[in-house]
Amino acid sequence: MNEHGQKKPYVIGLDLGGTNSVFGIVDSRGEIRATTAIKTQGYPDVKDYVRASVEALQVIIDEVGGIDTIEAMGIGAPNGNYYNGTIEFAPNLEWGRNGVVPLAQLFSDALGVPVALTNDANAAAIGEMIYGVARGMKNFIVITLGTGVGSGIVINGQLVYGCDGFAGELGHVIMRRENGRLCGCGRHGCLEAYCSATGVARSARELLATRKDKSLLRDLDPEKITSLDVSIAAGKGDALAKEIYERAGEMLGEACADFAAFSSPEAFIFFGGMTKAGDLIMDPIKRSYDEHVLPIFRGKAKFLISGLNGASAAVLGASAVGWEI
Amino acid sequence: MNEHGQKKPYVIGLDLGGTNSVFGIVDSRGEIRATTAIKTQGYPDVKDYVRASVEALQVIIDEVGGIDTIEAMGIGAPNGNYYNGTIEFAPNLEWGRNGVVPLAQLFSDALGVPVALTNDANAAAIGEMIYGVARGMKNFIVITLGTGVGSGIVINGQLVYGCDGFAGELGHVIMRRENGRLCGCGRHGCLEAYCSATGVARSARELLATRKDKSLLRDLDPEKITSLDVSIAAGKGDALAKEIYERAGEMLGEACADFAAFSSPEAFIFFGGMTKAGDLIMDPIKRSYDEHVLPIFRGKAKFLISGLNGASAAVLGASAVGWEI
Repeated sequence: MNEHGQKKPYVIGLDLGGTNSVFGIVDSRGEIRATTAIKTQGYPDVKDYVRASVEALQVIIDEVGGIDTIEAMGIGAPNGNYYNGTIEFAPNLEWGRNGVVPLAQLFSDALGVPVALTNDANAAAIGEMIYGVARGMKNFIVITLGTGVGSGIVINGQLVYGCDGFAGELGHVIMRRENGRLCGCGRHGCLEAYCSATGVARSARELLATRKDKSLLRDLDPEKITSLDVSIAAGKGDALAKEIYERAGEMLGEACADFAAFSSPEAFIFFGGMTKAGDLIMDPIKRSYDEHVLPIFRGKAKFLISGLNGASAAVLGASAVGWEI
Repeated sequence: MNEHGQKKPYVIGLDLGGTNSVFGIVDSRGEIRATTAIKTQGYPDVKDYVRASVEALQVIIDEVGGIDTIEAMGIGAPNGNYYNGTIEFAPNLEWGRNGVVPLAQLFSDALGVPVALTNDANAAAIGEMIYGVARGMKNFIVITLGTGVGSGIVINGQLVYGCDGFAGELGHVIMRRENGRLCGCGRHGCLEAYCSATGVARSARELLATRKDKSLLRDLDPEKITSLDVSIAAGKGDALAKEIYERAGEMLGEACADFAAFSSPEAFIFFGGMTKAGDLIMDPIKRSYDEHVLPIFRGKAKFLISGLNGASAAVLGASAVGWEI
């Protein structure tokens, strides 16, 4: 706040991914006023990462009128712990792999503004609540369908962090208790192992290997098939590709039926690359949900695709965390 | 409150079960000062049920000094909706089976005090928070193991009601997606179908039919075996009976591992008749939880048995809802 107790006009959002770190300066209406990025990799020491970030940030901070126009910074990052402002044992971050990194404090010291940090799916949920399709909702669940499956849960208008800051790991509920696929977490049968982009690609490889039907996917190197390839083939009417999305959607619908028994949300909001498949994934989700959910919940929840603008969604979500400080 | 804005000394708690309706007048320290009961059945019209209740209540209200000493009334009831104060389509209640009954309003009109109502498991959770082992906790889950499996979920110090008042139906998450047992809800594979008292009795019948080992349970009429019989036999060292509790505990541990991924609670608190089996059920729950939970949550949650005094627990829980008005 400034000396009159008013909030300053901008927050910084950082979408910290395994490959890129994207920064945006965002106003209170959710307009991104300036943006920049650095590579996340190449910094074994987190101090060098923060130094490089601040160097890049300084340019866009100057563009919008200097650091005195900045209210706060919000970071969405893998394995981010809101309570401590730390990143904890994040396998995909060179400097965050082996311990607990006080990233919020490091940025706050470097910039002189308050910094809050949360995991990327929670950032998406706060983004939806402030700027997106969840405006006015008090109970909803955001499910991020990316390399993994993440979630941000809002109950009574508040993000659910749990006793340790790590609540909302819905990609790791067990959907197959017998012969479940190995998940990156080391357990078997997690939702993420089937319904993430990598899970869908794996389903494609499995189906191509065990079935004989014709498919556009047979023209591709099986080891290199991505969920985008499957989506494109399905968009062209390829039956096998459609079936792969059907199956992922069916499992997501079953999972949402269990989530309804937990928090009975007003809406499930899907976020991330795989939602580009549109009805191909959303229709089976809805159908399967209605089929599997406890009768008392049937027909109550909405199924929505994120209202945040594609490329900038994660930055907007991260910036929203800054407004919440 | 009285004319000085102070709370009056007592609340009425009603534990409304399918068979009995137990009333207690409770002070702010959780001492039950007077108690009475009527049969729940025998009143096809809810107005007659309320009239009979108030008649019985009047005696104990007079005992503690009249209606002016009563701050409010709390009701814990099957299919109770906190938002509306209604009981909705409760299969075990003669007058509540076929519609929406505004029970809180009816009692409030009859007694002239505010009345709040919630389902029995939510009442237990509020009871634990105010009087029991969850005092001081902000994030915990109460799991009631009775005829069914119910749950009351507290997040950020608030009970989770969801968008419609019906959140927290954790007895109806699906634990067996293939060849699951038929559940009372009409679906297959619900936690309740295995881990309720009736589920445990069914497990006993199944094991006795498919196995040959000796067991004290073979002396009983299979159709009449209860979870209490299994618990008594297990307490005497009967291997088959112990195995039945082991299996129920293992599934509860797996289910809690999924619940941790949702809200990462500080504690899971078990409530109801089956907890009398003590370590027989709690040990396998803890062992199975540690084996199945996402590593990030391992070793964090406590596993507790309800701290509310047996027979009066449900009345205390219901009365606690009255203090929350």
